[in-house]
Order: sequence, then C-alpha cells, then structure tokens
Amino acid sequence: MILTLEGLQPPSNSNAWIINFGSEILTGFTQNTNATFLARKLSFLGYYVKRIMVVPDAYEEAGEEIQRWIEKKLGLLITTGGLGPTYDDSTLEMISKVLSLPLEVNPEAFEMVKIYYERLGESLTDERVKMAKMPNGAIPIRNPVGAAPGSILRVETGYIISLPGVPSEMRAMFESAVEPILARWSKNKVSEEILEITGIMESSLAPYINAIAKEFPNAYIKTHPKGTEGNPIVVVQIFASSKNEAEMNAIIAKVKEKIFSAVNKLGGSIEQEGGKGST
Amino acid sequence: MILTLEGLQPPSNSNAWIINFGSEILTGFTQNTNATFLARKLSFLGYYVKRIMVVPDAYEEAGEEIQRWIEKKLGLLITTGGLGPTYDDSTLEMISKVLSLPLEVNPEAFEMVKIYYERLGESLTDERVKMAKMPNGAIPIRNPVGAAPGSILRVETGYIISLPGVPSEMRAMFESAVEPILARWSKNKVSEEILEITGIMESSLAPYINAIAKEFPNAYIKTHPKGTEGNPIVVVQIFASSKNEAEMNAIIAKVKEKIFSAVNKLGGSIEQEGGKGST
Repeated sequence: MILTLEGLQPPSNSNAWIINFGSEILTGFTQNTNATFLARKLSFLGYYVKRIMVVPDAYEEAGEEIQRWIEKKLGLLITTGGLGPTYDDSTLEMISKVLSLPLEVNPEAFEMVKIYYERLGESLTDERVKMAKMPNGAIPIRNPVGAAPGSILRVETGYIISLPGVPSEMRAMFESAVEPILARWSKNKVSEEILEITGIMESSLAPYINAIAKEFPNAYIKTHPKGTEGNPIVVVQIFASSKNEAEMNAIIAKVKEKIFSAVNKLGGSIEQEGGKGST
Repeated sequence: MILTLEGLQPPSNSNAWIINFGSEILTGFTQNTNATFLARKLSFLGYYVKRIMVVPDAYEEAGEEIQRWIEKKLGLLITTGGLGPTYDDSTLEMISKVLSLPLEVNPEAFEMVKIYYERLGESLTDERVKMAKMPNGAIPIRNPVGAAPGSILRVETGYIISLPGVPSEMRAMFESAVEPILARWSKNKVSEEILEITGIMESSLAPYINAIAKEFPNAYIKTHPKGTEGNPIVVVQIFASSKNEAEMNAIIAKVKEKIFSAVNKLGGSIEQEGGKGST
C-alpha cells in the first residue's frame, strides 16, 4: 500500500519546532533564511512555532533534539538540510535511529531520483541512491527543483516533515506539497497588524504596552525600537491567533484602539503599515 | 568590590550556544541576523557553536534551554534579546531564576541607565530602572548605542553573556566589550577557504568529498549546490580549527589539493574565492 499525503490525519496539536541541520549556519557562513520563511508560513497557517534550532550534522547533537521533540508530544517538526548526497547529509538516518525505524530505499523516492538523473543522462551512483533512503513508513515529497526528495513521517502525536536545505528547493516543496496539508489541518485563524509610532521612546510607551499585554493575553504585542534618540520610532507588531475569527478580530481591534489612545496621550503620531491575515 | 571584565578567567571549554529570545523571530517577522553575526564571530574567534536556538519569551520554554546549557557544562552561552523595558523583556529574570540568584538593581548598570536618560532629559521610571536589574554577580556591559546594558555572568564552567536584540546595539557591544575578552581566552586558530567549482554536479563530486572528509576529520567540508542543471556550480566551504596553527594550515592545504585533483579528474574548473582566518 502506498501512503498518500491526502489521507493523513491532523496532528494532535498546533505546536511546531523547526530544526535546521547545518554546520554552515553554525559557522555563520549561511544566513538561516529557511527558518524565517518557515516560521512566517507556519505562524500564518495557525501553528505555534516554539523553537527554531540549528544543530550540527552529528547524531549526538541533532539526535538529542529530535528525541526531545518526540518526548514533548508536539504536533509538527519541520527539518531542513541534510538530505543531499554528501557524508554530512544524515537527517533521515538520524530520524530513523531516534525512532528505531529501518532506513531503507523508498520505492517512490527511488523513482523520483532515478527519473531526475536519467533526464540528465547520469547514472545512479550510491551517493544518488542514498537520497532515496528514508525511514520505513515515510511518504516522499517530490522536489520540483533539485534531486533530493523530502519526506513526511507520521509519529505518535504528529509529523516530522523533512525538506532540503537549498532555499529554492525547500520553498518549492513547502509551497507545493506541505502548505496545502497544513492549511487543511489548521484549527486557528491568524492576524497581524504593524503600527509605526514616531515621537515616543520605547521606554515611554512601555508601561502602556505592558498594561495592554496583561489585559489581552491572547495577543502577542512586540515593540521594536528604530530611529534615533532625537527622533524615536517604535514599530509595533500585534499578532493574534484564535480558533474563533470574530474573537481574534475583536482582540486586534481593541489592542489597536488602546495603543492609539496611549500614543495620543503621549503626544506621538501613529501610522498603520498594513496587516496580514490567514483568513 | 566591583568585578571587572579584565580579571575574568577563561571558560573551561570552547563550546558555545547562542540563544535568541524573541517571538518576533518565531513568527518570522524578524530575520535572525544576530545569530549569523555571532556564529561568524564566535567561529572565527576559535569557539565551536553547537546550537543556535530561538526561544519564546516564556520561562517554561526559555528557562528549560538555559538549564540544559548549564547541565552540559559548556563554555559560553550568548543570549540576545529580552533586555528592554517591556513586559516580554525577561531574559535576565529567567537566568536569575534558573541559577537561583537574586535579581537586583546592579549599581553600575543603574548608573549607565541613569546617565542615558538624564542626557535625554527623561525621568527614571520603573520600566527604565528594570533595565538595570541583573542576576547577583553579573558584570554590566555598556551599551554605546541604546539604553539597556548587557551582562556577563560567571557560572561554574563558563559565562552567560547577555546582549540586546536590536542588531546595532548587539553588534556594538559585542565588538567593544565581548570580542576582546573572547579573543584573549581563545585557544584555537581558525581558517576558512571558499572554492567555487563549475561544471560538476554536487552528487558527482560527493564520493570524492566523502573520502576527503573521512581522511581529514578535523576539517569541516561543506558543499553548497548553486547554479542550474545545465550549468552546475558547487561552492565548497573548508573550515578548520586547531590549537596548532601550522597543523591547521597543513590540513587546509592538503584538503584543497585533494579537491583540486578531484575536480581535474571530473573535468570541471575551480576558482578560489578567498579565505578568512583568525591568526
């Protein structure tokens, strides 16, 4: 029986971790844009990203974090990197080991890799077949840009979704195969508003923001100081997520109203930079 | 007695974690450039970055990771974010709690904050005094750009160094106060070379890279596929770190020689993009 993405049931909760495999990030050679892309996507799909973690390509380091994710019984683990043909590409091997699942050539993934190299007139070397090896039970994700397939693996409370580290491949696979499923599973609506306040220092606004945050614990309100001392600018991110869309919109509206009122009181000016929502 | 940075003894080992406090990163609102900056700096100062971790501004999440860092007896923990005046700025409070140290107004930090706001003609509100509260025993780091001081705290096996999340402040404080100490403590020399190979696919190069990596376990060799299928480009990062500079240079030279030889054999061409070292 071939498992399909369409038949999969939702994870038991909306909490997610992102683990990026890559010593190239830990040596600062590569900016981790994959994490930002995935964090933005997951957040707006209604999932709560609780950790972004960059780990070395070594079992004693990375395996420990995969194990912790399992023990915490979270809904989603998205990994990037470590699916390629070289010695340090060992993500799926590590996942197999942590879960005590055999690592084996997945027939569907093998077909994907075979077709990719046949088209280029290249033979199937060990290094290329390696990219089709997955934990038993994994569903491969087609890579429309490069060679290495991704994989989705059901575990007790959710899914481990493994994508390549090359950003163009990771994004294409996320958008074509992963995003539609996560959207279907999602239980939460999300909205974000960005306000830009000029003429008030962050520390002057702080007591008001603190009181508003206390009143609305379901909204995440973050102030980002910009500008200079003589011309202070504070960018405010208001992020709310709720099962109930009307409730979420009401929270955002009330938070904004309170911030506008505080800014008026403090003699600053405010501009709405636009928002984004998942509805 | 006022503790000073100059009198501090080296950590017991060169292993480092970076923990970024910030739900704005977990919602993908902010690209985590702080981690990349610090990872690059630490690596070239001769430290081994074993984890980059982004955590929510909540004790049950972030406190757990600080606790793990302590249990692993690592040399350095650099934190960014959570030093400001708002409700979610709680990094030093969390560190105090994990270490069971009182959180108290640090007299030196208080002076820094006081002078900063006096110069702006502003009063010392609770939210501003909060920025001077540190775990007992912490040494404050002057912030040449903004209000919130950083802190350096000696723990059993090393140091927790806490910097603000605003990149310009974080960078200025790292470069002025932290980098000189880390350089003084450093036991390792570091070198990196970047090669660009055209005309060979990553998977064709892979068996050679795998063999070279096996022969030189002290060098980290990472291939990054770029370019397109018709015109493959592979960027190779060779990173080596050693207590012995001559040995490190010899390793890099030998790895390069082997890669040049493989590229010749495979009919590709190679270009050296230049390197960077800590010597």
